[in-house]
Amino acid sequence: MKHDTTPNRYVPGEAVLGPEAQKRIDRRGRAMGPAYRLSYARPVHFVRGEGVWLYDVDGEAYLDFYNNVASLGHCHPRVVDAMTRQAATLCTNTRYLHDAIIEYAELLTGLVPIPRGQAIFTCSGSEANDLACRIARHATGGDGFIVTEYAYHGTSHLVAGLSPNLGPSVPLHPNVRTVPAPAAARTAGDVGEMFKQHVTAAAEDLLRHGIRPAALLVDSLFSSDGIYADPPGFLSGAVDAIRDAGGLFIADEVQPGFARTGDAMWGFERHGVIPDIATLGKPMGNGYPMAGLVAHADVVDGFGETSRYFNTFAGNSVAAANGLAVLDVLQDEGLMANAKSVGGYLKDCLRSLGARRLGEVRGAGLFLGVEVVADRDAGTPDRAAARHLVNGLRDRKILISSTGKHDNVLKIRPPLIATEEHVDRFMDAFVELLDEKAEPAHES
Amino acid sequence: MKHDTTPNRYVPGEAVLGPEAQKRIDRRGRAMGPAYRLSYARPVHFVRGEGVWLYDVDGEAYLDFYNNVASLGHCHPRVVDAMTRQAATLCTNTRYLHDAIIEYAELLTGLVPIPRGQAIFTCSGSEANDLACRIARHATGGDGFIVTEYAYHGTSHLVAGLSPNLGPSVPLHPNVRTVPAPAAARTAGDVGEMFKQHVTAAAEDLLRHGIRPAALLVDSLFSSDGIYADPPGFLSGAVDAIRDAGGLFIADEVQPGFARTGDAMWGFERHGVIPDIATLGKPMGNGYPMAGLVAHADVVDGFGETSRYFNTFAGNSVAAANGLAVLDVLQDEGLMANAKSVGGYLKDCLRSLGARRLGEVRGAGLFLGVEVVADRDAGTPDRAAARHLVNGLRDRKILISSTGKHDNVLKIRPPLIATEEHVDRFMDAFVELLDEKAEPAHES
Repeated sequence: MKHDTTPNRYVPGEAVLGPEAQKRIDRRGRAMGPAYRLSYARPVHFVRGEGVWLYDVDGEAYLDFYNNVASLGHCHPRVVDAMTRQAATLCTNTRYLHDAIIEYAELLTGLVPIPRGQAIFTCSGSEANDLACRIARHATGGDGFIVTEYAYHGTSHLVAGLSPNLGPSVPLHPNVRTVPAPAAARTAGDVGEMFKQHVTAAAEDLLRHGIRPAALLVDSLFSSDGIYADPPGFLSGAVDAIRDAGGLFIADEVQPGFARTGDAMWGFERHGVIPDIATLGKPMGNGYPMAGLVAHADVVDGFGETSRYFNTFAGNSVAAANGLAVLDVLQDEGLMANAKSVGGYLKDCLRSLGARRLGEVRGAGLFLGVEVVADRDAGTPDRAAARHLVNGLRDRKILISSTGKHDNVLKIRPPLIATEEHVDRFMDAFVELLDEKAEPAHES
Repeated sequence: MKHDTTPNRYVPGEAVLGPEAQKRIDRRGRAMGPAYRLSYARPVHFVRGEGVWLYDVDGEAYLDFYNNVASLGHCHPRVVDAMTRQAATLCTNTRYLHDAIIEYAELLTGLVPIPRGQAIFTCSGSEANDLACRIARHATGGDGFIVTEYAYHGTSHLVAGLSPNLGPSVPLHPNVRTVPAPAAARTAGDVGEMFKQHVTAAAEDLLRHGIRPAALLVDSLFSSDGIYADPPGFLSGAVDAIRDAGGLFIADEVQPGFARTGDAMWGFERHGVIPDIATLGKPMGNGYPMAGLVAHADVVDGFGETSRYFNTFAGNSVAAANGLAVLDVLQDEGLMANAKSVGGYLKDCLRSLGARRLGEVRGAGLFLGVEVVADRDAGTPDRAAARHLVNGLRDRKILISSTGKHDNVLKIRPPLIATEEHVDRFMDAFVELLDEKAEPAHES
């Protein structure tokens, strides 16, 4: 497949699979077509999940250090119970009054530190980012967007065109400008100042083309650019810059949000900035399809008054019950503190490795990136070695993936319930794999 | 609210509400902002649903002749059970192999009569239409779209700009042309021929502006234009016309699909045409957020090879289990046949009314529209009278809504499990209301 930039993908014909797996993949291809990708050189077939574990069709347990949706652990019983009870009682939409969605919106706007915040619910993070951009256009009268050069913001036409990560086959819109992610190691000097200058220049370039800036849209952990979290505060100059240019700051919290960074509920809080709109998704329902945004009332006002927003499923009574259960579990199980301590432990373990192939260890809480390089000093990205490690861990029954422009950054994102024992198990396998002499087996 | 084209909406301050309802609405406005609308002059607060019934906070039962999502009846136990069992076992995504999604895709592509059909899953009908348009652009190299003049296709930026129904505050994209819906009563001559001519002219106008047509996108029952179903076959000329112009035909089955028309699973089948892409949604999971599309393999091919499509929640194992249960219930309870017989009975009852205010009764199966007119002979639309009837029924604890360019068409869409007894109950209330001398109480 030409131009395929999908990280960690199965490549048909590359590995020899068992006849059952091959048969499933063939049936899948016939019924679901070529747009779907599978993960890993040898795709995995799961049939059960519980806590940090996924079980494959042969009953083998995999340690899930990757999936961000089941952030409270797979099949969390309190969330499943809340969903079931509500689904058996009433599942209906926001055109009727219902207490759970009001209560959930009140809690959520209380948790997002945007003054006079208002919540709007969607089904997916893509829909949340798409709606945020629609609102930003309305609020600013502008139509220009600035994103980072390997950003991913979703699959709708509008946000796919704001997602360079999708590769050259999916064109960026003409009114989009990209800026390098704030990558400290590759920036001589102040990374925040550099990022600000890039955003300022991008806004000027938009204006030079007669396009008024509507927003700077960034994932607050730069998840797809390669995971950049430090130094804290590096976003503030860029936020000033986009506002000076008349645009809004939209924080895409779909991946970093809901306590994952350990220090705060949202990734942007690390940088001491307040977005105009924060978009939310993946772990919001621990698996139930739900997402949304919180925006300053002044930002929503004009849009909301003239442009109704109705989303058939979003904010329905089951989504609300689900979302409330997730917030309860986050609080009752102390998962933000756990993300901080276990994430800190994992980061220390990773940094203590002296492996020649590993570069920077980055990230916050339980969202870490490890650069895989051909040469530690030069920092040359090594995509093939990263692919080898991801698949080597998969063969040792541990799930992670890779990310970044060069697809050479290991993306490690355990559930928020992970313990130091789980980290130890991960590290044992990782060290074993690093110590192997084997050459990279899979080229992407 | 200026330019607000929302049908059947609550208008703040218009009706006197109880203090509890008012308090809820105020809290809702603060936490959820102005983009949300509520239905009815006096919004309803439901707490429980079962079969055709919704129960409000005071325990009063409402006959639901409107909600198309819970098409098998509210809280159908087989669907809730299937969802619960799967959610307690495994909820994960399409990057891993899972049998349920393969099986569901095979069943679905077998049910949609598109040759070599392939299914792609989304969370919402909006996402399905947005993706269908992305695929059509890729497959045709064109960028022009033709929709009907009061169509609604969703809320993403792309499809909101293809939805004149959203009103003048949401601009149509420059590459969109609108055509009148195929409205038999207002067309002298052959409605299909007339519709074909409109589509041909729209395609020519796009080309005259240097825009190659990508697709004709229509709701196959013209749900938002006012519900137009007859005569069967009227779509075929327009489908030829768009293909002659190099574009695809996309059937939006989000409202008409899944057996609602009584004769077939999909609305387009009424017209003897085969779309290039059919988009699916609302009743697909009987409440669980799921939607998708089925397209001819040749149409998906180029897009899928170069543009990966991953949707975090869509096609997850719980959605698949849910969708399978819905198909089972449709079949086991004989609901297509029920939609045909009970829908036919309802249509006969409505047509037997001699009320001065009622015009055409249109539609198919359990999706009917009744025109409300000031004068039966002239056919002058009477929006206020329609609003009066919708709210009068609500006060008699029966739910319907209104639709169409003039918002004067009663939209009656009972669940597929409705019986003749439910129809009789509806008709008793409707006749009582029509016999009242009262003037319209609510102006929109």
